[in-house]
Amino acid sequence: MMHSTATPDLRLVLVEPSHPGNIGAAARAMRTMGLRQLVLVNPHAFPHAEASAMAAGADDVLAAARVCARLDEAIGDCRFVLGCSARRRHVPLTEHSPREAASALWTHATHGPAALLFGRERTGLTNDELMHCNGSVFIPSDPEFSSLNLAASVQVLSYELRLRQLGAPVQAGPATAPERDEPPATHAQMEGLFGHFDQTLHDIDFHKGRAPDTVMQRLRRLLLRAEPDQREVRVLRGILSDAQRMARLARAAGAVATPNPGPADPAD
Amino acid sequence: MMHSTATPDLRLVLVEPSHPGNIGAAARAMRTMGLRQLVLVNPHAFPHAEASAMAAGADDVLAAARVCARLDEAIGDCRFVLGCSARRRHVPLTEHSPREAASALWTHATHGPAALLFGRERTGLTNDELMHCNGSVFIPSDPEFSSLNLAASVQVLSYELRLRQLGAPVQAGPATAPERDEPPATHAQMEGLFGHFDQTLHDIDFHKGRAPDTVMQRLRRLLLRAEPDQREVRVLRGILSDAQRMARLARAAGAVATPNPGPADPAD
Repeated sequence: MMHSTATPDLRLVLVEPSHPGNIGAAARAMRTMGLRQLVLVNPHAFPHAEASAMAAGADDVLAAARVCARLDEAIGDCRFVLGCSARRRHVPLTEHSPREAASALWTHATHGPAALLFGRERTGLTNDELMHCNGSVFIPSDPEFSSLNLAASVQVLSYELRLRQLGAPVQAGPATAPERDEPPATHAQMEGLFGHFDQTLHDIDFHKGRAPDTVMQRLRRLLLRAEPDQREVRVLRGILSDAQRMARLARAAGAVATPNPGPADPAD
Repeated sequence: MMHSTATPDLRLVLVEPSHPGNIGAAARAMRTMGLRQLVLVNPHAFPHAEASAMAAGADDVLAAARVCARLDEAIGDCRFVLGCSARRRHVPLTEHSPREAASALWTHATHGPAALLFGRERTGLTNDELMHCNGSVFIPSDPEFSSLNLAASVQVLSYELRLRQLGAPVQAGPATAPERDEPPATHAQMEGLFGHFDQTLHDIDFHKGRAPDTVMQRLRRLLLRAEPDQREVRVLRGILSDAQRMARLARAAGAVATPNPGPADPAD
C-alpha cells in the first residue's frame, strides 16, 4: 500500500489540563511515537518545571506547544476533529476505535489540518466540546476500572498513530471520503454555518415554541456527520440568506411580528 | 471468530524495577486493560508508598503481586514467554509486533500459563534473560526518541492484550455508528425531503438565476452522505415549511414579486 510521504498536519490538543506533569508526560508519549504538534487550551499552569521534568527530553515538543485561551482557536482551521471520550456518552457521535481513529486522522491530516482532542483529567471533554467534533474515540478500557489517565490515553492514541504512520494495514473508516474537488470545510467555517443556521431559525420563527439548543444539536450532528466541503457550506449559507431575506421582507411589510419572544404575535 | 471464554493465565513480569512508582503505574496500566497478574522479580523496593500512590486504585493488583527473587521462579511454570525489548538486538529471537505478541500470548494463555517480561528501566532485559523467551516484542517507537518508559510500554502491550481479549479483528472494521433511537429515513422520505427542498428553494428565490438541478444534486449528495434518521428529516422539513411561510407572507404583502411558475404556487 502506498502512503503519502508528506508530513501530515496533525495536532494533539489537551483541553484544560490541570497538572503540568501530565503535559510533560503527554509530550513525551507523543515524541516517542514521532508526533510533535501539541496544543494546550487554557492549561492550569504552563510552562512549568514539572512539565519539563516529565517530558524527559521531549523539550522540543513543549517549547513548540501552542497555548490557546479557547478551544475554537485551537481547532478553527481544522477540517477533521476527533475527541477522546473516556466512556460512551449519550452524545450520538460516530464512535471510533483508537485504530480507526488513527487511520481517519492520518488520512485527513495529509490533506489539511486535523486534530485529536483530550479532555480534562477528571471530567474529560464536555458534551458541548464533543459536539464540535466529527466523531469520538473510545479506548476500550475495562469498564470495571476505566481510570485511564491523560498521559496513558495520549500514549495509546500516539502508538496507534505511529502504526498508521508506519503503514500498518488498516481499513480506512467509512468517514474517509473519496477524493473531492473542494476542500472540506474548516471547523471555523462549520461554526459560522451553525451560527447562521441558528439566526435564520430565529428569523423565520422556527425556534418559536421549540427548544433551540436541542434543534441546533440535531443539526450539528447531522451536518458534522456529512463532513461538508467548502462549496456545500457556501450553498447552505446562500439558502439561509435567502430564507432570512424573505423573513425580513415579510416583517418589513408588517406581515410578521418582530421575532423577539414575549409579546403576542398578531400575525398568528 | 470464536474466542475462549476461559480466563487466560497470563502474567506480566517486571524484572528488577528500580522505581516503586513505576510498579504502581504498571499495575494501573494493566488494570485499566483488564489484566491482573503482576509478578515482580527482585524489585528494588516493594511494597512502597509510591507504588500504591501511582497505582491510583489498582491496589488489588499490587496486593496480589507475586515477588520472586529470580526470573526462573517467575516463569518456571510458563509454556510461552515473550520479552519486551526496547530495541532490536543481536539475539536470534523471533521479533513480534505488539499486536502479534498479544495474539500469541493470549492464544497460549488459554491453554496454560504464559508470561510477558519487561526489563529494567535503564537497561532492559539482558541477552541471557531474552534467551529464556520464546520470542521478543518490539514497540515501534521513533528511533530518534525511543525513550519509552516502563509504564508506557506496559500500557501499550496491555492495550493490545485488551483488544485481543475483546476479540478485535486484526484488521480494523468500519467505524461503529452511534446507537440511534430513531430509524433511518426511508428512500421515499428522502425523496419527499428533496422535493420539499426544491420547492422551498423556488419559493425563497434561491433557484432564481441558478441551475436548480446542480444545486439539488449537491444537496442530495450532502444529505445522503449524512444518512439522516426520520426525526432529522422531520426537523429539516419543519424548517423548510417555516421558510416557505415567510416567503408566502412576504408575497401576500406584496414585498416580493410573484415567482416564476412553481408547482404549488396558488398565485399561478
